[in-house]
Amino acid sequence: MKRRDFIARASGGVVASSAIVAAPAVIEKPKIQWRMVTTWPKNFPGLGSGASLLAKFISEASGGRLQVKVYGAGEIVPALESMDAVANGTVEMGHGAPYYWKGKVPAAQYIAAMPFGLTAQEQNAWFQYGGGQALADRIYAELGCKFFPSGNTGVQMGGWFNKRMNSLEDYKGLKMRIPGLGGEVVKAAGGTPVLLAGGDIPPALQSGAIDATEWVGPYNDLAFGLYKSAKYYYYPGWHEPGTVLDNFVNLKAWEKLPANLKEIVKAANTAANSMVLSEFVARNNASLATLVNKHGVKVLRFPDEILNGLGTVSGEVLSDLTSRDALSKEVFQSLLKFRKNAIGWSRLSEQTYLAARSLPFKYGT
Amino acid sequence: MKRRDFIARASGGVVASSAIVAAPAVIEKPKIQWRMVTTWPKNFPGLGSGASLLAKFISEASGGRLQVKVYGAGEIVPALESMDAVANGTVEMGHGAPYYWKGKVPAAQYIAAMPFGLTAQEQNAWFQYGGGQALADRIYAELGCKFFPSGNTGVQMGGWFNKRMNSLEDYKGLKMRIPGLGGEVVKAAGGTPVLLAGGDIPPALQSGAIDATEWVGPYNDLAFGLYKSAKYYYYPGWHEPGTVLDNFVNLKAWEKLPANLKEIVKAANTAANSMVLSEFVARNNASLATLVNKHGVKVLRFPDEILNGLGTVSGEVLSDLTSRDALSKEVFQSLLKFRKNAIGWSRLSEQTYLAARSLPFKYGT
Repeated sequence: MKRRDFIARASGGVVASSAIVAAPAVIEKPKIQWRMVTTWPKNFPGLGSGASLLAKFISEASGGRLQVKVYGAGEIVPALESMDAVANGTVEMGHGAPYYWKGKVPAAQYIAAMPFGLTAQEQNAWFQYGGGQALADRIYAELGCKFFPSGNTGVQMGGWFNKRMNSLEDYKGLKMRIPGLGGEVVKAAGGTPVLLAGGDIPPALQSGAIDATEWVGPYNDLAFGLYKSAKYYYYPGWHEPGTVLDNFVNLKAWEKLPANLKEIVKAANTAANSMVLSEFVARNNASLATLVNKHGVKVLRFPDEILNGLGTVSGEVLSDLTSRDALSKEVFQSLLKFRKNAIGWSRLSEQTYLAARSLPFKYGT
Repeated sequence: MKRRDFIARASGGVVASSAIVAAPAVIEKPKIQWRMVTTWPKNFPGLGSGASLLAKFISEASGGRLQVKVYGAGEIVPALESMDAVANGTVEMGHGAPYYWKGKVPAAQYIAAMPFGLTAQEQNAWFQYGGGQALADRIYAELGCKFFPSGNTGVQMGGWFNKRMNSLEDYKGLKMRIPGLGGEVVKAAGGTPVLLAGGDIPPALQSGAIDATEWVGPYNDLAFGLYKSAKYYYYPGWHEPGTVLDNFVNLKAWEKLPANLKEIVKAANTAANSMVLSEFVARNNASLATLVNKHGVKVLRFPDEILNGLGTVSGEVLSDLTSRDALSKEVFQSLLKFRKNAIGWSRLSEQTYLAARSLPFKYGT
């Protein structure tokens, strides 16, 4: 690669020299070309949109002074090597989800999603006004990167099951594909969490190698065909109530960026972050209707007994896990404090309003 | 003003000339200076933040090529003349809320907030993926402007009362400061909606000229001192479940803007839109605690009987009002369709999740 880079630069130099001869008063603005690797297939619904929207916003708003080109998983590096590629400077930018990097810095998973934690709206508020951005920047600085929240799935679904879930006992012996903190909770409840890449889920579910799986929500789950291998679709997604997608930028590349391009990257991320959530909100219901009406999926609510039990287990698991690592503990304590206040307010606002809107009155024609 | 502009430009020219002499190769990029009038006092908590954040993002991301200066209500024109000032080109940009312009184009009020309508998250999804932006642009084109959503209050509070509200009957004869569509619903329920500017609310409530009032939520209501004149603080804000703030740009000024600056304005608005909501989410709870613990405010939930009754009345009022104006009807039908789908999804996601998170389990230490 280095030799090709050198040749490209050398011939670029020739072009620039002749351009100066032809029009001596025109000074070309320096153009920066960045590559963004992602953990998603290119243009993957919802998840991959954040990367595409971000690259488009940055390239267009900068008038081409900072051009970002998106590469899907596997095009330059495999999905989960995206962070290494950015950290070591192979590429300048990446797009994924914070929990993918927990093996490098355990605290990363707590800013992705916490069982019974913050919703998307609250998570944004924590990043922007609750000290979350500074904590996330410290986590990503250990990875050699600058962090931006760059998309959110909103509340996910609880998962696909082939048996009815009536009590916490039903998790005993259950083999479920569920990664991260949700998996730790399932394990503590007596189940066996299994890690499988997306493409391996449908055959594993069909062969009985796993009993259950979670993925994202109706929009992605329909595209994935999970309804072919399980018939009960449980809600709500207590384990991922507002999963954060991340944009990570090589710290040295970030620091060299002129101030106005930094502002463009920042605004573009805040915008992409909001638009990804909007895409999920706008698309999930139609996909849900297709799952129910076309594919005969049974949509079921986890009983309160299970939710209350998983809530208790989640609190124990999180307190225990975070006590082993100072940065994880600091992040958890910050999220815990913000969560307490957020619940105080959401009980009077979103929660009560959504219940009020569901009362049986007739509305508009 | 014209003569001063001319002098300013002339002396600017002298400076530029000497700069060119000193460094003949430097070509100054054209700088565009815009003024933004607002319907808010400058830096007013939450509501005014959108304007400040927007101006900062645009000015910094453009590297000063598009500089936006914010003027609070009354600095150039009174609050409610902001739209005229932008439409006639006195200034290039304004920041307020769509319902302020219903006297000019009735359809504007439906994209601001609808009783029992969309939440902030859903409203964003409607603008971005539900056809809302195109409809809003048509409404604002009639005003001579380009439209951007540029902030959202989230679910507001129901209001301040001096008596307990037990049934829909309690609205009969009630004099309540409540503007817009919420006011129409209160009127249809037998009350008397009163229009008062913010500053006139506390004395009117104290003298008994009005029986009740709504304003925004704990963050703004505490700053306004409304707790001094009423003791019951009802929730949820069925009348404004996610009030949209607007950024309106003179259409001719907008069309003259280079493509990359247009993208900056767009991304900056999407970012400001998200950050205003985050500010409300992050600040409302602490203000609520101050109202309850320091000022002895009693926080009460509207009984289901009232919410269900107001829901029915809202549906009737909206169907009736929108039937009188073709554009209003088109906007309402679009919102109604999106709302139906949004409810389908939020019942399985936000609504059930928020209820699950409120179960009595102990969580984290």
